Amino acid sequence: MADPTRPPKNFHHTVPDGDERERLVCRDCGFIAYENPRIIAGAVVEHDGKILLCKRAIYPQKGKWTIPAGFLEMGEGPDEGAVREAYEEATAHIEIRDLLAIYSVRHISQVHMMYRATLNAPDFAPGFESLEVGLFAWEDIPWDDLAFPSVHWVLAHYREAMGKSGFAPFTNPV
Amino acid sequence: MADPTRPPKNFHHTVPDGDERERLVCRDCGFIAYENPRIIAGAVVEHDGKILLCKRAIYPQKGKWTIPAGFLEMGEGPDEGAVREAYEEATAHIEIRDLLAIYSVRHISQVHMMYRATLNAPDFAPGFESLEVGLFAWEDIPWDDLAFPSVHWVLAHYREAMGKSGFAPFTNPV
Ligand SMILES: [Zn+2]
Ligand SMILES: [Zn+2]
Repeated sequence: MADPTRPPKNFHHTVPDGDERERLVCRDCGFIAYENPRIIAGAVVEHDGKILLCKRAIYPQKGKWTIPAGFLEMGEGPDEGAVREAYEEATAHIEIRDLLAIYSVRHISQVHMMYRATLNAPDFAPGFESLEVGLFAWEDIPWDDLAFPSVHWVLAHYREAMGKSGFAPFTNPV
Repeated sequence: MADPTRPPKNFHHTVPDGDERERLVCRDCGFIAYENPRIIAGAVVEHDGKILLCKRAIYPQKGKWTIPAGFLEMGEGPDEGAVREAYEEATAHIEIRDLLAIYSVRHISQVHMMYRATLNAPDFAPGFESLEVGLFAWEDIPWDDLAFPSVHWVLAHYREAMGKSGFAPFTNPV
């Protein structure tokens, strides 16, 4: 079987009639597989002043640490996606507080919507996408082993937002 | 040619190996056409206390009024999408002020990211998706002919946010 994440070979990039952009179009039947930016929903989850991090069991960045986050699914709001991801990756039941940051990661067409959340009880365990899950005090965060730039950004913004509420969400650092 | 927006008949909904959800999969080659929520980027555009509205030239809701808004394209940030849409639909060069609201429209898997923006000069004209474009004082807004519930929501939130800045974006009305 072909790589299921790559389009079949009869798809090609072309500008359909009445459109202005290249789309992924089937040469056989004209089906247009529209590609749109995808939303990553995630949360900085706090318990007793510590932050929940997951060690990734999957590529990319296997073995590196991240906050719970992943692709938003059909029919979900971004806050609901963040709740589901925390459960899938860390078996953690979280409560969303507010929207912390929105990042545009243009070169991979992603929009990251990052929330602040709390973990009411320290109950968690690795989900199937995580090798390890833990609560980290700020000074114990594995800064050199974070999976993505956006994990650095969101932790810095989390720190900056401490004690604040009702603020405009942070955006990409300049 | 088949309807290009509908998947070819050899696609069907099934749960791929290692997944937990139904996806749109090609029976021939296994290609998975992932479906994810899409982002609508738009703006409430103000000039001299009036608001820019476009009368839709396309379905759905042809002939009804909306703020400039549309699907975010690959490689764009949501604010950039809002700027592009204002140009496409109203030939208007707008300047983004801040993020006004984020709405989850779950039954059609859309996340609407709505900004506040200003139009520096009253230069605008219908783009190819608009029949008419105009600046409306609050009391002249065609309330009974707005295209979508989210247009009502965003105008109400715009009104509520007047004179404020640095606030958390509004969300779906309850
Ligand atoms: Zn085809
Ligand atoms: Zn196929």
